[in-house]
Amino acid sequence: MKKFVNDPQQYVPEMLKGIELANPGKLRYIPDYNLIMRADAPRDDKVSIIQGSGSGHEPAHVMAVGKGMLDAACPGDVFAAPPSDYVYETTKLLASPKGVLHIINNYTGDRMAFEMGRELAEAEDIKIATIIVDDDVAVKDSTYTVGRRGVAGNFFVIKAVGAASERGASLEELVTLGERVNSVTRTMGMALTSCTPPAKGSPLFELGEDEMEMGVGIHGEPGRRREKLAGANAIVDELLEAVVTDLPYSSGDDVALMINGLGGTPISELYILFGRAHQQLADRGVNVTRSYVGEYCTSLDMAGASLTLVRLDPELNELLDAPAEVAVRIF
Amino acid sequence: MKKFVNDPQQYVPEMLKGIELANPGKLRYIPDYNLIMRADAPRDDKVSIIQGSGSGHEPAHVMAVGKGMLDAACPGDVFAAPPSDYVYETTKLLASPKGVLHIINNYTGDRMAFEMGRELAEAEDIKIATIIVDDDVAVKDSTYTVGRRGVAGNFFVIKAVGAASERGASLEELVTLGERVNSVTRTMGMALTSCTPPAKGSPLFELGEDEMEMGVGIHGEPGRRREKLAGANAIVDELLEAVVTDLPYSSGDDVALMINGLGGTPISELYILFGRAHQQLADRGVNVTRSYVGEYCTSLDMAGASLTLVRLDPELNELLDAPAEVAVRIF
Repeated sequence: MKKFVNDPQQYVPEMLKGIELANPGKLRYIPDYNLIMRADAPRDDKVSIIQGSGSGHEPAHVMAVGKGMLDAACPGDVFAAPPSDYVYETTKLLASPKGVLHIINNYTGDRMAFEMGRELAEAEDIKIATIIVDDDVAVKDSTYTVGRRGVAGNFFVIKAVGAASERGASLEELVTLGERVNSVTRTMGMALTSCTPPAKGSPLFELGEDEMEMGVGIHGEPGRRREKLAGANAIVDELLEAVVTDLPYSSGDDVALMINGLGGTPISELYILFGRAHQQLADRGVNVTRSYVGEYCTSLDMAGASLTLVRLDPELNELLDAPAEVAVRIF
Repeated sequence: MKKFVNDPQQYVPEMLKGIELANPGKLRYIPDYNLIMRADAPRDDKVSIIQGSGSGHEPAHVMAVGKGMLDAACPGDVFAAPPSDYVYETTKLLASPKGVLHIINNYTGDRMAFEMGRELAEAEDIKIATIIVDDDVAVKDSTYTVGRRGVAGNFFVIKAVGAASERGASLEELVTLGERVNSVTRTMGMALTSCTPPAKGSPLFELGEDEMEMGVGIHGEPGRRREKLAGANAIVDELLEAVVTDLPYSSGDDVALMINGLGGTPISELYILFGRAHQQLADRGVNVTRSYVGEYCTSLDMAGASLTLVRLDPELNELLDAPAEVAVRIF
């Protein structure tokens, strides 16, 4: 296994400790609950926003904690839902008089953990609401999911509700906003390679040297079909067709275009995909007015990418423009 | 070859086109000279800063162009120096009455291309100065280099002189500053895997399943030695020992610590390395006051990482704090 790892059981805790050390005074790591939270949370004048999911998708979500984004992330082990009692304890720690918002990507395990954690916390009079993100158009149901999966598009939900919460939006307003963002966001991804969970030590699934998996899930779940390896343009065109026709996005729409790397793909290749997608959208009359190229929601060391579109409007543009501070920095 | 590529000959141009499309109004791609430049450059009140090198190291350097950073990057093909006439044309396009600064990582091919380009441009009365970056402590000479190689530490040189140039620093002041930053910056890297150049289509070198290359160069050049694969902590400790003892960094020093991924390593693993390095530096009495974790200077899809230290002082801290805008964005 060609990975930087000590004890696979300590993979997530060691990463979380590193995140805390890299962000002194801004982020806190609470080992008891495997939790990263803003040092200044909770605040009485702000809804606390929590996202939880399995680890292995970084920067989602532990590196999306910060001003204007999440107040806390509550990760499980690699590709595993967080324990429900950790969700409960995280919710208690983040409790604000304005309430707590749970954002959950649509996986059955995560939903169960958050539902149980929510029930426990509500019994202590904490006001909680939930947003489910399900932006992945690849398949209707999947290995770990009833309904569509939640993938990289969740960053737009987080960014929008994070900005609105900083301005004092109510819990109800945030739910309405988050559901609205989710409703105009669509994603599809594909894998060139498998990925290797540290505790397994070998590839999660097999993919031949001349094969790719179109519509792959971020835990290696099967997609729409396995195909013969194709060139970058053909891959983008297939992803784009699936995403554009789903909402659908129409001529005259302003959109955000995100090309998200799955962990093992260098950013040079992501810009090749982006350029093609941008040109193809222009040919359809769809205007890319916001661009995102990089890693947002990964699958460990998987080589691959996903394409996300978000239909924009003035309110959403303004929220996406708002300042945000996260653990991941460039300069 | 599990890569997003169409025609390998178009790999770099397609990437550069994608960068331009993702940054409308801010960055321009000039196909004739394979060049990315700020849309507002050159400016009469500012020295123009140009970095050139082979491609395949992204975000270095084409994604480090922007306000407070580079005014232009002049890349060659993958792992190849830019043609000297492109350096010449780039320098002419960026010519400012305050002068043009060339920043070059120390590789023989890049130095030759820039020296020839400089001579041609100086014949047209353009004032030019050069900074050579050579932060890699791994080996004294290397496959493509006389003297130490320049690697991820160059970002600190770029960030510092970029900030100073925005404030009107003279060409001579920028050279003094850049050389000073380079003199307090040291890096060493290592590879877990090889990398695959698109035009070659197969790994650049062979590395066994139980092997790693300590001190690897960013073009796959041999390092200090090939070793048996080790755990994350042992790897960090070896990199850190080599870097710390070189300057040396001493108890009481304030430092920036950068863990740079080489392209195929997920950011989760980089934080595991960061946490260990931070703790080991604390044990030595060295204070990490600035933290950088991510991809800065890569080797295509190579799994691996480098560790950089920079000894800080108030002037340098202030320059590193200055605002910068680059092509790579998180939110």
